[in-house]
Amino acid sequence: MPKTAGIVLVGNEILSGKIQDLNAAYLCRELRVLGVDVRRITVIPDEVDVIAREVAAFSADHDLVFTSGGVGPTHDDVTIEGVARAMGVRVVRHPALLALLDQYYGDRGTDALRKMAEVPEGAALLSAETLRFPTIVMRNVYVLPGVPEIFRQKFDAIRDRFRDAPIHLRSVFVRMGESTLADHLNAVLKDFPALMLGSYPEFSNPEYRVKVTLESRDVGYVDRALSGFLKLLPADTVVRVE
Amino acid sequence: MPKTAGIVLVGNEILSGKIQDLNAAYLCRELRVLGVDVRRITVIPDEVDVIAREVAAFSADHDLVFTSGGVGPTHDDVTIEGVARAMGVRVVRHPALLALLDQYYGDRGTDALRKMAEVPEGAALLSAETLRFPTIVMRNVYVLPGVPEIFRQKFDAIRDRFRDAPIHLRSVFVRMGESTLADHLNAVLKDFPALMLGSYPEFSNPEYRVKVTLESRDVGYVDRALSGFLKLLPADTVVRVE
Repeated sequence: MPKTAGIVLVGNEILSGKIQDLNAAYLCRELRVLGVDVRRITVIPDEVDVIAREVAAFSADHDLVFTSGGVGPTHDDVTIEGVARAMGVRVVRHPALLALLDQYYGDRGTDALRKMAEVPEGAALLSAETLRFPTIVMRNVYVLPGVPEIFRQKFDAIRDRFRDAPIHLRSVFVRMGESTLADHLNAVLKDFPALMLGSYPEFSNPEYRVKVTLESRDVGYVDRALSGFLKLLPADTVVRVE
Repeated sequence: MPKTAGIVLVGNEILSGKIQDLNAAYLCRELRVLGVDVRRITVIPDEVDVIAREVAAFSADHDLVFTSGGVGPTHDDVTIEGVARAMGVRVVRHPALLALLDQYYGDRGTDALRKMAEVPEGAALLSAETLRFPTIVMRNVYVLPGVPEIFRQKFDAIRDRFRDAPIHLRSVFVRMGESTLADHLNAVLKDFPALMLGSYPEFSNPEYRVKVTLESRDVGYVDRALSGFLKLLPADTVVRVE
């Protein structure tokens, strides 16, 4: 079975429309390339109880969980506390993180800053040469920041550990309305029920009207489905195949 | 009590990283302006059971629910079925929608196309002069399409019905690290516990380091909190107030 993943975005700033999240889309693209199946994304407010409930459910339902946001030094940064409560453990200050903060800030370190040494008890730290600060992992939950540049740095440093069997993608661009196409799509699914089949209409694209995607972890299966699909389509409706 | 809202995005194309959703961010901005409190966003696959479970939970937990995606004529368009199952009703073809489809397509209408006349039994239709096709509402669930242009058209046509008491926003841009600022934010929250207070660091902005947002539905409250906050800050750290 391929690995499944869930993404938990923590942030009032997203729900109140102040910031458009970029991290979930980045993670979905990257995990797809790695062969991991993202099953669900949730966006929730900066509230410990809500985070705890959602992280507990996501952790039980998925192989991997990634959180984004709520890990800075201010009052609304409560993700660590939420993850700890989800796992039924205390929040503790990690000696290695305290040492890092002291090294960077020395006497200038405030109490607020020391909050950044907090982890759920029992959490692991993942370090990398490219990172100033390690990534906190609690069981199957990877705690990542909300700031997109740092989010990407941190994910990229650990991405290889998530690699699974690749998903093979074929795309067919057709000049045919989605409602006519629908019958052909249904016919393909009848012969290839395990195919992941998507259909994406374009309303103002001069080149094609629908992009059809065929996907499978079995390269032979996807290619047989592709041949079968192409045989169903009138040749002059196929713009290109990728 | 102000109205709460939840957003359900249906689409494998988002989870598999093929498409970046734009509709949730649009809706969050618009609903904020209207004074509606978005409490949660979920992104789920094109699976009837998952949609049914999520829509049922969202409908019970929020005053308003908006779905996006899964309403076209193809095999993976199963949102209507999911909403019907969430509400424990059948899917039926709505005579007014059938008539509209016949009017547009006449004999060219395929069975797949007629699927677009399907609604959960008991659903209402909201028409508007700007719309070619009315919006389906099932109890507190507004069913919107995934294509951003049509999503916006449909939401804009009904937005006025969601207006609530406005939320008053004040923004303070400061030249001070978030960890030093944190103590001042905590002090403000001690005096104004009902304040919605956000703090958004910028890592490569030459003008300021943190944007602080103060919000309340009570304009007097937010302005008293703003004065209190400004008194705490050294004058040379305040770049501007909006």
